[in-house]
Amino acid sequence: MYTGIILYQRFSEYELSVLLSVLSQGNKPVRYIGLDSTTVQGEAGLTCVTQSKVSDLPIDELDSVVLPGVEDFQHLVGHQGLIDFLKHVQKENMPIGAISSAPYFLAMSGLLDGYRYTTGLTEEQRMFLGTFQEDNYIDAPTVQDGNIVTAKGAAFIDFAITYGKLLQLEFNESWYR
Amino acid sequence: MYTGIILYQRFSEYELSVLLSVLSQGNKPVRYIGLDSTTVQGEAGLTCVTQSKVSDLPIDELDSVVLPGVEDFQHLVGHQGLIDFLKHVQKENMPIGAISSAPYFLAMSGLLDGYRYTTGLTEEQRMFLGTFQEDNYIDAPTVQDGNIVTAKGAAFIDFAITYGKLLQLEFNESWYR
Repeated sequence: MYTGIILYQRFSEYELSVLLSVLSQGNKPVRYIGLDSTTVQGEAGLTCVTQSKVSDLPIDELDSVVLPGVEDFQHLVGHQGLIDFLKHVQKENMPIGAISSAPYFLAMSGLLDGYRYTTGLTEEQRMFLGTFQEDNYIDAPTVQDGNIVTAKGAAFIDFAITYGKLLQLEFNESWYR
Repeated sequence: MYTGIILYQRFSEYELSVLLSVLSQGNKPVRYIGLDSTTVQGEAGLTCVTQSKVSDLPIDELDSVVLPGVEDFQHLVGHQGLIDFLKHVQKENMPIGAISSAPYFLAMSGLLDGYRYTTGLTEEQRMFLGTFQEDNYIDAPTVQDGNIVTAKGAAFIDFAITYGKLLQLEFNESWYR
């Protein structure tokens, strides 16, 4: 069983990479999943290769999902492939980690309804996007509610540690702070 | 003029990625440089694409270099292409950042001689490798001596900020802590 890491164009390398290391320390298999292409370029310019597309992956072996933050995510607003994937994830009630702007993808797919969450998006951005439940927003670095971990971008280390613990992985936190 | 990021097999994604973000914030062009292959897999499994090989790059436009940490670097001990490249870098006296095990590549190429440094490698490992000047080792998270910034792995945020300042870049530190 593996954790699916969704890689979209302009994903934030630094918001994701400590979590990748936690998964690696905990011997958790991962799969890098693209949406529409087999290579993606991160926001700092690192070009990465995906292993599956979201529409074509061994879904029965997926047991958890991570959504990195992404700069300028206009290309992902209402992305049907991403929404369909996330609705499957919701049905299976699997652990989800979403950081920075990525909680929006959960909100736009209905997965945040009834969950407390945080995000790096401002109140103005959340209002503009229109799919967040404002009453459930928590102004904290990291928020875990059930199987959903959300975080602001600068909390990327805490996000990684919280998600690793949710997956009950063993890892050495002193690698990161 | 660009910063060369050397990507070797099993490089540490998290030790590098905050520095990539600092360079990106500071609008510093970067080039991802491989040693022997055009794709490399990081220690957490992320497969990345390089843009040049170390033996074949626009060397006149290179003005700074970053060496990420790497797990199990036996494949790099005495690597002639890496040594030749680093000797060129030394001749030009350009800013160098090396984290975790990467100061060893500087030591094996003679670039650390006379410089104070730190590293994630233990005293036993430094002795075994045989190219470190032990008197110049500093037990600190990050050490800057002239144009050379070295750090222990867990100091990856401080390493990135110190290197960004050495390059006189403008960036917002609050993205990372």
